[in-house]
Amino acid sequence: MARRFPPDGASLVTRFEALRDEVARANRALAESGLVALAFGNASGVDRAAGAVLIKPSGIACDAVEPDQIVAVSLADGSVLEGGLRPSSDTPTHLELYRRFASIGGVVHTHSSYAAAFAQAGLDIPCLGTTHADHFAGPVPVSRALSEAEIAGEYERATGEVIAGTLEALGLDALAMPAVLVRSHGPFTWGRSALDAAANAEAVELVAAIAHRTLALAADTAPLDEALRLRHFERKHGLAAYYGQGSEDR
Amino acid sequence: MARRFPPDGASLVTRFEALRDEVARANRALAESGLVALAFGNASGVDRAAGAVLIKPSGIACDAVEPDQIVAVSLADGSVLEGGLRPSSDTPTHLELYRRFASIGGVVHTHSSYAAAFAQAGLDIPCLGTTHADHFAGPVPVSRALSEAEIAGEYERATGEVIAGTLEALGLDALAMPAVLVRSHGPFTWGRSALDAAANAEAVELVAAIAHRTLALAADTAPLDEALRLRHFERKHGLAAYYGQGSEDR
Amino acid sequence: MARRFPPDGASLVTRFEALRDEVARANRALAESGLVALAFGNASGVDRAAGAVLIKPSGIACDAVEPDQIVAVSLADGSVLEGGLRPSSDTPTHLELYRRFASIGGVVHTHSSYAAAFAQAGLDIPCLGTTHADHFAGPVPVSRALSEAEIAGEYERATGEVIAGTLEALGLDALAMPAVLVRSHGPFTWGRSALDAAANAEAVELVAAIAHRTLALAADTAPLDEALRLRHFERKHGLAAYYGQGSEDR
Amino acid sequence: MARRFPPDGASLVTRFEALRDEVARANRALAESGLVALAFGNASGVDRAAGAVLIKPSGIACDAVEPDQIVAVSLADGSVLEGGLRPSSDTPTHLELYRRFASIGGVVHTHSSYAAAFAQAGLDIPCLGTTHADHFAGPVPVSRALSEAEIAGEYERATGEVIAGTLEALGLDALAMPAVLVRSHGPFTWGRSALDAAANAEAVELVAAIAHRTLALAADTAPLDEALRLRHFERKHGLAAYYGQGSEDR
Repeated sequence: MARRFPPDGASLVTRFEALRDEVARANRALAESGLVALAFGNASGVDRAAGAVLIKPSGIACDAVEPDQIVAVSLADGSVLEGGLRPSSDTPTHLELYRRFASIGGVVHTHSSYAAAFAQAGLDIPCLGTTHADHFAGPVPVSRALSEAEIAGEYERATGEVIAGTLEALGLDALAMPAVLVRSHGPFTWGRSALDAAANAEAVELVAAIAHRTLALAADTAPLDEALRLRHFERKHGLAAYYGQGSEDR
Repeated sequence: MARRFPPDGASLVTRFEALRDEVARANRALAESGLVALAFGNASGVDRAAGAVLIKPSGIACDAVEPDQIVAVSLADGSVLEGGLRPSSDTPTHLELYRRFASIGGVVHTHSSYAAAFAQAGLDIPCLGTTHADHFAGPVPVSRALSEAEIAGEYERATGEVIAGTLEALGLDALAMPAVLVRSHGPFTWGRSALDAAANAEAVELVAAIAHRTLALAADTAPLDEALRLRHFERKHGLAAYYGQGSEDR
Repeated sequence: MARRFPPDGASLVTRFEALRDEVARANRALAESGLVALAFGNASGVDRAAGAVLIKPSGIACDAVEPDQIVAVSLADGSVLEGGLRPSSDTPTHLELYRRFASIGGVVHTHSSYAAAFAQAGLDIPCLGTTHADHFAGPVPVSRALSEAEIAGEYERATGEVIAGTLEALGLDALAMPAVLVRSHGPFTWGRSALDAAANAEAVELVAAIAHRTLALAADTAPLDEALRLRHFERKHGLAAYYGQGSEDR
Repeated sequence: MARRFPPDGASLVTRFEALRDEVARANRALAESGLVALAFGNASGVDRAAGAVLIKPSGIACDAVEPDQIVAVSLADGSVLEGGLRPSSDTPTHLELYRRFASIGGVVHTHSSYAAAFAQAGLDIPCLGTTHADHFAGPVPVSRALSEAEIAGEYERATGEVIAGTLEALGLDALAMPAVLVRSHGPFTWGRSALDAAANAEAVELVAAIAHRTLALAADTAPLDEALRLRHFERKHGLAAYYGQGSEDR
């Protein structure tokens, strides 16, 4: 019996099911790690060959997301390809990030409280220690504010554009800096996969919490020494990385 | 065999049992989300057709509330309609809120620590970001202090009056601003149902925590841009809301 | 077959077993509520008729305490009556409190972090809101420092004396103020039973956390209005108390 | 059938299996106690007779470490003796600590947030109360910064040298001060065993949290009185220690 979508048959079906499982797990991971309460966050994954993004439905609590609730939307135009529920209202932001960052496979958005506090204060998360340097190539940047026109128009897509523009203005690669704080809003993170993006969401909240507590002790703490920062970043992310079990862990 | 209460027989019995279950679940949700320790909080639901409010018994730990412990009291006069335990000592506050806010179906009270800190400091929770704007139509207001006469008289009922008066003085609709901080006391929240009120209790604590952490970073953080605040509130709550799975999610 | 201890036979054995169970549960409750990590705390209960105090063994993690590990010691002289393990090193403090406060049935000691922070700062926990007033008849006092002679001598017993002296100097009843912060040390709490003392340990940490967060927002927050403070304390603890399910809940 | 490693046959196999189990448990304990998220930490244990250190593999989340994933490396030269995975990238630090501190049996590294905040601020954790004195013989010291040459060379081994040098410069015994904060990095702890080192990691985070909250209340809090500090340390660690169930608990 013919099946029209996904277009290339059984192997794609299997691949889709695996991705759906991973996206559901990534959403639940956000709840389990305490980053997301109620429905205040979302995770997605992309199948670039199929031109599809799989994402959490809108208004569903992260801790209860099941694979068969995950919605498939077109990477090109956002139309729903599969799934009976409405996709996350943040879907246009995710789509924009997938279009702008060719290397990424997953996107996550949370309102985790320390990272959101830096976003609300309009401050980068400064790189004050090796925990930060292990994960992010410098301060985690806060975006510029959206303009009135951007807010009034396709707001969620504009949010994705502003995030991508933040990295571009700083000359940063998306996998070297897998997080941006949207000003007055909160953190968006990404990675090679949906689960990798969820791990980066946990990393950005951890480094925000440590930075917050550091600044409370010593408001004038200097940024991490540059040689030490590079050493930590390179041992996890550089060409000669020696952290993890192989290239897939870097 | 005849049953005198609830008055209209089987269908009402079924409805009551469902509400009792929901109210018990809402109370346990307060404990599970860490908002309430021991017996420091309570949740209720109303059946307006039956003129009854179902509420937690007094002095029972939220994490252990069972449906058959839920007490039914008269919406009109607070007398116990059903149940072997004494209702929460805050029952008159809940009753007053149901009388004043015709649109609500559930009420919750907690002493969650960040929201209570704003209440004790006598400060509104300022709207500093989109997390806040997603849930509340402006700063979450702190009430005026109760007068000596109110404290000496029907104190719990007066607490409900002061909450309702706070929204009225600001011209706010109860579902657009489903929370008030009672000065020197703590947050009361409400919603379309008991579970909705419990979710709003979690939201008010989250935005209080983020605001607290924001102010520690930058004490002079300006309120959220008004256009952005409205955009976020309207996408969840407006006539053209596009968040959630339908009108019941808004 | 004769059994020499407990002296009055079967009924006392049953009573002891119930108390042992409760004391073990109170110790585990301290771990479950996050007040105590590792072995940093202890709970005990007293059987005044038998002249015995049942207490946690020394160096055992609270989350793993079993009833058969609980040690029985003499209220009069601290000698071990029953049990194969060494009693908590804080046993002489517990004994002193049972001797000085005739109305109490349980004692708890923790190093919970917000209450310990007030103790280390040498500050009372100020009564800034109704959460506090619900549980404690005024500020939770910090004790004086122990003298060099007290530290060099029977240090743990002296700690109990200093706690009792703190309440006496303030003219406070032990059940109206079931907590003292030992300066530079941490909170001791008590109550009608071991589980009641554990609940008071949770209450003192909660009010300390809310006060800490309040002072961070507004360092000059005034104490709670006296009429409101009394109203809240009396509705739970006064002769006309209307909180809980009866006198045993007050 | 002959087995070449471990060299002395069955008894060593049994000993190794027990140590592997303990090291896996110590790693999971770091996750369970909330000290470590994702893969941001590691625990090891040493078998000095066999010249082997058993340690977590690199890039594996602590909460999922199984005994058969634990890697055995040579204490002498760090070469892998047994195990199919790459050892933690921090292995050279652990090895250096085992070489320098003859009395220790386990090492732990975390990025727990309060201790890391003191490390990032470049501040010792001051000894402000008895909770601290119970575990550490004075302020928990922060190390000097590593030199450019140390960062560029065998960085992880140099980290171990700097930790050992910190204790030596202060004349402190490794078991009396089982923790050092590596500047701009985070806490390393050790102890008689891997589980003991994990308990010390929990202790250093607890005392850091209490100190942080104390300094927020009173930035000028004086160090703990010296007589009281010694009394608390000695009752747990001195020759006449009376805490715990015997010498193995001290």
